[in-house]
Amino acid sequence: MSQRKLIIAVIGARDPSPEETGLAEEVGKEIARQGAALICGGLGGTMEAACRGAESEGGITIGVLPGDDPDAANPHVKIPIATGMGYARNVVVVRSAKAVIAIGGSYGTLSEIAYALAGNTPVIGLNTWSVSIDGKQDDSIIYVQSPSQAVKQALELII
Amino acid sequence: MSQRKLIIAVIGARDPSPEETGLAEEVGKEIARQGAALICGGLGGTMEAACRGAESEGGITIGVLPGDDPDAANPHVKIPIATGMGYARNVVVVRSAKAVIAIGGSYGTLSEIAYALAGNTPVIGLNTWSVSIDGKQDDSIIYVQSPSQAVKQALELII
Amino acid sequence: MSQRKLIIAVIGARDPSPEETGLAEEVGKEIARQGAALICGGLGGTMEAACRGAESEGGITIGVLPGDDPDAANPHVKIPIATGMGYARNVVVVRSAKAVIAIGGSYGTLSEIAYALAGNTPVIGLNTWSVSIDGKQDDSIIYVQSPSQAVKQALELII
Amino acid sequence: MSQRKLIIAVIGARDPSPEETGLAEEVGKEIARQGAALICGGLGGTMEAACRGAESEGGITIGVLPGDDPDAANPHVKIPIATGMGYARNVVVVRSAKAVIAIGGSYGTLSEIAYALAGNTPVIGLNTWSVSIDGKQDDSIIYVQSPSQAVKQALELII
Repeated sequence: MSQRKLIIAVIGARDPSPEETGLAEEVGKEIARQGAALICGGLGGTMEAACRGAESEGGITIGVLPGDDPDAANPHVKIPIATGMGYARNVVVVRSAKAVIAIGGSYGTLSEIAYALAGNTPVIGLNTWSVSIDGKQDDSIIYVQSPSQAVKQALELII
Repeated sequence: MSQRKLIIAVIGARDPSPEETGLAEEVGKEIARQGAALICGGLGGTMEAACRGAESEGGITIGVLPGDDPDAANPHVKIPIATGMGYARNVVVVRSAKAVIAIGGSYGTLSEIAYALAGNTPVIGLNTWSVSIDGKQDDSIIYVQSPSQAVKQALELII
Repeated sequence: MSQRKLIIAVIGARDPSPEETGLAEEVGKEIARQGAALICGGLGGTMEAACRGAESEGGITIGVLPGDDPDAANPHVKIPIATGMGYARNVVVVRSAKAVIAIGGSYGTLSEIAYALAGNTPVIGLNTWSVSIDGKQDDSIIYVQSPSQAVKQALELII
Repeated sequence: MSQRKLIIAVIGARDPSPEETGLAEEVGKEIARQGAALICGGLGGTMEAACRGAESEGGITIGVLPGDDPDAANPHVKIPIATGMGYARNVVVVRSAKAVIAIGGSYGTLSEIAYALAGNTPVIGLNTWSVSIDGKQDDSIIYVQSPSQAVKQALELII
């Protein structure tokens, strides 16, 4: 049997703050150092920063794109998957990962968090959404303070 | 040109509380009374209650199903759309509607709220999720107190 | 229980010949006369001709669009379903129908024929693709010579 | 910039003949020897044989699955992508590849050939479908006689 790669998703906005960009790059580095593959939406911003980090440490980077053209992936994606399915590709990013690390947040990120929680995939949050219903905060998202904690938590929850 | 129907989505869980079931049925009735078509995920719980309400007032009910079989729709769906795409069908429910009314909430509902906000589709909430980032509540969801207010708000925001 | 509509798909190219346009319009009329709803890809060419025919006889027309915007449907679509999923929406057209009528043919039409056959949905052909493997023609597509025969065959195979 | 992998798709049935299984395994080997990555539907039969071949030569194997569970991939898939989108995942297999090699054939394979031709992706055929319209065979599929010819043709048409 092939040594199947453990895959961790990094989700976040196309227009992150400088701080979030730094967090994403560091998360990508740490995922690669731990020997896991990184999956993301394949475009710019948070996604590109995470891929850049993983690539710099020799990691595998998978970009699940909304469009039809694999060449639209950011330059640090090694394996571009072209879905042609627009936003519905968010489901694919999440379902393919054993854990999800959310950084900052757009509404696209929120949809991915929701899909992950619906499928019982652990969600680790860095400066990201919190969600409440009936005035009570849902405590399914696990908030951490640093990239290394995020990857550590992800790995502990998977294994 | 065909008189195209104005379509409003009702989203909510498969296992609503009795109160939410009542709200959904009343929202369905009001959508039909206002001459709009109702779109939903086509299954049970909130979806079925909303369809039952719309049907009782002679409305059109569209059910966008996760599975391959149109006959899996609840008995009050007049037009079943079988996507075979699982959770990714949530995108289709939301994109096909001019406004979205969210009742109660599961993680699936949260993903639909996120998709709607990402696409600038108005979201009206009845006892549903609220979302925050950096400690600040996102004020894009418009909360109302009754089914009739929900449909009134939806129509005002569309027209 | 709601009187659920029997749904028949009409599939064909965006750039049909004048003859195919005429066939599609007549098929649409006949579907409506028989009390069935018509589902198609919602755009121009064969799809628009079929919807125009169905509308002229008071039928229900459902357009399952590749893009995000319900208003991109042809003017004879009464119920636009916006998938935002590009070509993958072809699956939805086919899965939602109890029978498929194929007119002329593009590669998109061929993909829809293949999906229908894979799901054991009857395919009725008017001037459309034939497919062979190992030099033997696959006889799953039922070829007819006229729009009225096409709809008659579709209804016989469903009921 | 990351050295992005050239990706070639292998498509074929879950229940291939012994001859087709042998062809698929050899195609997989040759793809890996040429330094390309292999993408397929991730399940058994033709897909598994192709992945087994590629793995035996140290190649990268990507499996785009219809279901929600990455662990449903055949044991020779190194990178499982779980779409949860059923047959619609066929679009993803094809869009992510620069060329498609079709072996034998089921209706699913026919849908993938159609998608590839619709997107101007080269299709190389080994004992697979031929398609005709108006009595004329469509000559877009390039038929070859051996696995090595198939991969050679694929690479020539890409580069």
